[in-house]
Amino acid sequence: MQTVHEVVELSGHIIDSWSLPRAWDIIMDRGGNFAVEEIRVGTSKTDTSYCRLKIEAPDYEILELILSEVQQLGAVLTHADNVHTTTVEQLGVLPAKFYSTTNLATQVRLSGQWVQVEHIEMDVAIVVDEKNGRAYCKPMHEVEIGDQVVVGHDGIRVQPFERNRERETFAFMQSDVSSEKVKVLAIQEIARQMQEIRAHNGKILFVLGPAVIHTGAGRYIAELLRRGYIQVIFGGNAIITHDVESALYGTSLGVNLETGEQVEGGHRNHLRAINAIRAVGSIEKAIEIGLLREGITYEATQRHIPMVLAGSIRDDGPMPGVISDMQQAQRRMREEIQGVEMAIMVASMLHAIATGNVLPAHVHTVVVDINQSVVTKLADRGSFQAAGLVTDAELFLRGLLETLS
Amino acid sequence: MQTVHEVVELSGHIIDSWSLPRAWDIIMDRGGNFAVEEIRVGTSKTDTSYCRLKIEAPDYEILELILSEVQQLGAVLTHADNVHTTTVEQLGVLPAKFYSTTNLATQVRLSGQWVQVEHIEMDVAIVVDEKNGRAYCKPMHEVEIGDQVVVGHDGIRVQPFERNRERETFAFMQSDVSSEKVKVLAIQEIARQMQEIRAHNGKILFVLGPAVIHTGAGRYIAELLRRGYIQVIFGGNAIITHDVESALYGTSLGVNLETGEQVEGGHRNHLRAINAIRAVGSIEKAIEIGLLREGITYEATQRHIPMVLAGSIRDDGPMPGVISDMQQAQRRMREEIQGVEMAIMVASMLHAIATGNVLPAHVHTVVVDINQSVVTKLADRGSFQAAGLVTDAELFLRGLLETLS
Amino acid sequence: MQTVHEVVELSGHIIDSWSLPRAWDIIMDRGGNFAVEEIRVGTSKTDTSYCRLKIEAPDYEILELILSEVQQLGAVLTHADNVHTTTVEQLGVLPAKFYSTTNLATQVRLSGQWVQVEHIEMDVAIVVDEKNGRAYCKPMHEVEIGDQVVVGHDGIRVQPFERNRERETFAFMQSDVSSEKVKVLAIQEIARQMQEIRAHNGKILFVLGPAVIHTGAGRYIAELLRRGYIQVIFGGNAIITHDVESALYGTSLGVNLETGEQVEGGHRNHLRAINAIRAVGSIEKAIEIGLLREGITYEATQRHIPMVLAGSIRDDGPMPGVISDMQQAQRRMREEIQGVEMAIMVASMLHAIATGNVLPAHVHTVVVDINQSVVTKLADRGSFQAAGLVTDAELFLRGLLETLS
Amino acid sequence: MQTVHEVVELSGHIIDSWSLPRAWDIIMDRGGNFAVEEIRVGTSKTDTSYCRLKIEAPDYEILELILSEVQQLGAVLTHADNVHTTTVEQLGVLPAKFYSTTNLATQVRLSGQWVQVEHIEMDVAIVVDEKNGRAYCKPMHEVEIGDQVVVGHDGIRVQPFERNRERETFAFMQSDVSSEKVKVLAIQEIARQMQEIRAHNGKILFVLGPAVIHTGAGRYIAELLRRGYIQVIFGGNAIITHDVESALYGTSLGVNLETGEQVEGGHRNHLRAINAIRAVGSIEKAIEIGLLREGITYEATQRHIPMVLAGSIRDDGPMPGVISDMQQAQRRMREEIQGVEMAIMVASMLHAIATGNVLPAHVHTVVVDINQSVVTKLADRGSFQAAGLVTDAELFLRGLLETLS
Repeated sequence: MQTVHEVVELSGHIIDSWSLPRAWDIIMDRGGNFAVEEIRVGTSKTDTSYCRLKIEAPDYEILELILSEVQQLGAVLTHADNVHTTTVEQLGVLPAKFYSTTNLATQVRLSGQWVQVEHIEMDVAIVVDEKNGRAYCKPMHEVEIGDQVVVGHDGIRVQPFERNRERETFAFMQSDVSSEKVKVLAIQEIARQMQEIRAHNGKILFVLGPAVIHTGAGRYIAELLRRGYIQVIFGGNAIITHDVESALYGTSLGVNLETGEQVEGGHRNHLRAINAIRAVGSIEKAIEIGLLREGITYEATQRHIPMVLAGSIRDDGPMPGVISDMQQAQRRMREEIQGVEMAIMVASMLHAIATGNVLPAHVHTVVVDINQSVVTKLADRGSFQAAGLVTDAELFLRGLLETLS
Repeated sequence: MQTVHEVVELSGHIIDSWSLPRAWDIIMDRGGNFAVEEIRVGTSKTDTSYCRLKIEAPDYEILELILSEVQQLGAVLTHADNVHTTTVEQLGVLPAKFYSTTNLATQVRLSGQWVQVEHIEMDVAIVVDEKNGRAYCKPMHEVEIGDQVVVGHDGIRVQPFERNRERETFAFMQSDVSSEKVKVLAIQEIARQMQEIRAHNGKILFVLGPAVIHTGAGRYIAELLRRGYIQVIFGGNAIITHDVESALYGTSLGVNLETGEQVEGGHRNHLRAINAIRAVGSIEKAIEIGLLREGITYEATQRHIPMVLAGSIRDDGPMPGVISDMQQAQRRMREEIQGVEMAIMVASMLHAIATGNVLPAHVHTVVVDINQSVVTKLADRGSFQAAGLVTDAELFLRGLLETLS
Repeated sequence: MQTVHEVVELSGHIIDSWSLPRAWDIIMDRGGNFAVEEIRVGTSKTDTSYCRLKIEAPDYEILELILSEVQQLGAVLTHADNVHTTTVEQLGVLPAKFYSTTNLATQVRLSGQWVQVEHIEMDVAIVVDEKNGRAYCKPMHEVEIGDQVVVGHDGIRVQPFERNRERETFAFMQSDVSSEKVKVLAIQEIARQMQEIRAHNGKILFVLGPAVIHTGAGRYIAELLRRGYIQVIFGGNAIITHDVESALYGTSLGVNLETGEQVEGGHRNHLRAINAIRAVGSIEKAIEIGLLREGITYEATQRHIPMVLAGSIRDDGPMPGVISDMQQAQRRMREEIQGVEMAIMVASMLHAIATGNVLPAHVHTVVVDINQSVVTKLADRGSFQAAGLVTDAELFLRGLLETLS
Repeated sequence: MQTVHEVVELSGHIIDSWSLPRAWDIIMDRGGNFAVEEIRVGTSKTDTSYCRLKIEAPDYEILELILSEVQQLGAVLTHADNVHTTTVEQLGVLPAKFYSTTNLATQVRLSGQWVQVEHIEMDVAIVVDEKNGRAYCKPMHEVEIGDQVVVGHDGIRVQPFERNRERETFAFMQSDVSSEKVKVLAIQEIARQMQEIRAHNGKILFVLGPAVIHTGAGRYIAELLRRGYIQVIFGGNAIITHDVESALYGTSLGVNLETGEQVEGGHRNHLRAINAIRAVGSIEKAIEIGLLREGITYEATQRHIPMVLAGSIRDDGPMPGVISDMQQAQRRMREEIQGVEMAIMVASMLHAIATGNVLPAHVHTVVVDINQSVVTKLADRGSFQAAGLVTDAELFLRGLLETLS
């Protein structure tokens, strides 16, 4: 049988980080075969290893598929080519063989130099600015005619996650914490990391779903804002609407947050809240005239903490400030994500997934939800560096605030 | 203590439909009191009943709250006023005391005549066209300066759902079917209703989530389209993207639908599918040139079955045809909802909630999801006429198609 | 058509407690019909109502079915017969027409006197001791030859739950608290009730699943024991095994409870813990010799708080003290349930259902689980007086202890 | 620092089956260190590899812990000792250093010969019969004074699962099938395996929960019994009670299985069913006199298919044939498990876990449940060879029967 082949190298903690056995799995699962041309195995836990593999496949399509996947494990083609690019010819349309990114730190070889790809995120294209020796990410719908887009597999180097061999980090940052594990420890570790990040003025992002308000936990977020633990907020129409509803009428979906009683059918106060802000024109104006005096939106606005609020098809209103156009909303998210070191996503599925899509892998991400399947779903989408915590959002936030105090 | 009061009447099957005891509950739960001025109880199951209630409340705000809720049970103010309206003075802003609709059939009294409110849906305003003796619904963001919007509670009559006293209807159309009930019976009843609706050329709406494609159940939807059982489809970027991905490459999120194998990491083929359609410009063009030859999108397009595809913040691409602006997308949904008699929502939460928001109560609605909490969540939002079916979407659709054959 | 009939009376808050409309529903759902012979409706919220209904059914079997169900709503046959009984003729076998109990307070008419049935629980038989004018519950497998067992529907009066018309009680005690409601309020109300019960030396029962230990929440239960808030514990082999494992080795299923690390595969320490106690013979002996020095089992044993530990088919060991015979275990539960005023069930399904089976309806019951379907399942079994709280067991117990402090 | 050490060997597909990197992980996670004394890596996918590792640990306890875990990956101590044993001195109590089994095929070295451990299951002890050169498993509570129980780590060899390198087996047999994957393919593969097993008269076990009856799927199990696809059934009181209830009265928990209607409150017919069988004395007698004429229990009894029915603390009745003593029930399960080649567990958690505890790893196990967390829970207990299928039990069984036809 006629086969095609390519030689790649892997190096580093490729055995105890499981990247080598994973690469072998992929090659065989996709219908290829391999021969180990050279292997050097580190003989203690500090030594690194090296492997040069010849990958064979029945045709170019399969070979390319294998290469696209083993590259994510850090495999680099041995023939030292520069990255290949193709020019965009239609607005918002990529060349057929475009390289699709992962969220791992990535380098491309330009004129023999390895250059870091800026603003890395997954499932987008890499555009090369040859003249300035730069490379950066662009989503499909934003590519313009003339853009030089990376294609194929040459001259691309991905830095895979290496499992931390130090024992002092808590297990939970490497995997999910089910509802049957000790969450108090996870909360302590999250608090410690937040303090560390704030100590050097790093940015912490909170992604919030409306259940934060329904459960009365808005007060904890407001307090975290006052204490400087939140630098940016992502969410939707529901979180701001119910936050304003609770500030104006003391209810969330009609439930009195002080007594737990359903004080109305639930469909009036949130509309009244939206209408009241629309009547004055904006959140800022509502604060200025003394209409809005408390809550997450109030605290964030007063402190100039950006809230990127993306609309959705199920929205009433919407509240002024909510972005109705999805591409514009994604653009705003990409702007505000810059510099974020930690992302804490609470009781949100839609916005958590959207955020996961644009976050680089190195951001410490914590997903908190009472529903195991939400946590699992986020992990399934490739945001695999996220630590999932299956617990109650209200009691989690209360505990987090206590621990930070 | 000074109190305010109002007299209302309820009539019909108000005891066995539980509307009278419910009204009493509401009055007391909201802090009011009542006196029964007159009551006539039907003495057999065909007789109707009548009750005139004097409602007392400590202040006007509570009285108004009570009235807004008992009106949803069919209570009508006895003093026979016409409906009150206020003129809109700001674009997209309602008058402070606007009446917020339910999804139940509603009438308003114009010049002494009860007039049916057109295109009823919940959580919107009623605009009155006095000159032509008409009244219709408008969402907050669409009201224009000069619109006459219904305010207060006078001259409004809601027709509550009366529980069906006939025993031949299946229990499942009145409540949820848990995973521990006989679903084969529910499937038979759904099939029967679909056939009945199609016998008189009625419209059936399907709301579809991407799991329909991931599970290989796209083929059943395609067949339902060919057999004329679907007149309109609502969904998002994911359903069309994975449908086209499966038509072009045989995969959904990288899983081969014929073998169940993961044939690639899952992040390439869906981007390639979007890019391929973007390159030719539209779904219609892709069909014309023979690129797209099968699947839901293909069948629907060939049959001129409208697909309203609303974008969301988590989308890649998007696929041509997906609407990125949320208000425009809602407008398209409202257009296509007209005339729908049955709505079947499968494995979708976001789009199912959005659809529930605009559906009138009389549309037979079935929510199918494997996750109990999704079904519960839909019911909690007031779409209480929905029958929930906790089951597997793939096997449900397969069984439905078999039953219809 | 030939029909059979029976006349019943209902009185009390039968309209606002919905027992009258429910009774009418049942009659029609089961295929009967009714005529209202007399009705008097209370005209304000303090007045009670009265209704005399003639129930018709096509045959005796349906009539009996209807009567058995409307009796649970408080309907009493108007012809003032004494209760009927039949003598047991086979050990552990009931007469064919035995009356099956509910968990509501029930009276039987003996020689013209209404007598309270002792130790009421659901799904068992009532045995009459005519000589001493007493009646009490017996499960099927415990009836003995010669027992006089209640049959049919004459002379039986059930006291249905009337919905509390007072507004000061929290909504949550009447229905489920979903993960999207304010749980801090529910915790405060539970704490208040516990304090009230302990103020008059009432008994509080905790039913505990092993996740209480896995999550490190055993310390909170131990503290509740020290503070006198727990008078009896129900559970299984798992809770005691992991509690002892954590006391002896600091782990639960191999996870170190201080660091969250998996310190062994999880299958050794729990076996070692069981084996260690088996080697010394009993928990009491292990405490005496200083082997067991902390934890739930230690605190409970030291305070003579009974732990009823029922075995199950999935058990390893078992630990000394666990009852392997199910009928013996149920007998022990029935003994210890006497006098319990409140039952708090945390992260347990099997034992919570078993406890629900033997608890009378008047016991305040709270079911805490992170899984909505567990809470729903308990309610579906007829333990409808239970308040369900969908939240994290660990953080719930921590919050409860803080609130009680 | 003074350390202790031990040398082990691993061989086979230790890299692509990930046993070598896993072993390194364990050593470091538990606080040890290692040096690779020799390594030979296979250079193609058919070659095997070999590694000799020197494991160091700070003390004997940690060394022992590490050895106990790496043994499960196939590591064997290099110094060729026979297995060590200690004599049992107390009934039902193991020696302190007893070796706790996994469910993987295991050998012990007796007089220099590797001998297969009979009836392997996890979390039990190995008893050696030196005289006859045999070794077999015994649960803790069954060990007798004088039994020779394996202790320590010498002379023990575990055969780990090697991942199948052949691509033709479906992915699903290696991991969970979520509700979002194609289940029709999984059903086809299960059917194929069942036919293969029956072609050589192999045994198939079904573990059944009561939802099988509530959903009307009892008919599919009855048909599978008639067609010879079930050789043994495990379950509890609920499955037999509702099966008999449905055979006698056409209901399950009071729901008519033909119409889906709730025909009674649900608490009478199941008690009547139990009482009816108790009155005649046994299932066999009930069939003989023509009382029981259909259903799972009827078909199984007529075909002499053993049903092992283990009681639980939540049972009513119980039905004759249900075993009330847990240790006796486990003993019966262990007897009937012999020779089973495939285990299909449907809608059962308690009995599925109990069965997982006694099944050897080589039995093909399929867990079907609509609840993701049940499937996850089973996997967490170490029954990691189980394929989980998140789907609807009723529609799964219907589809399985169709596929087998």
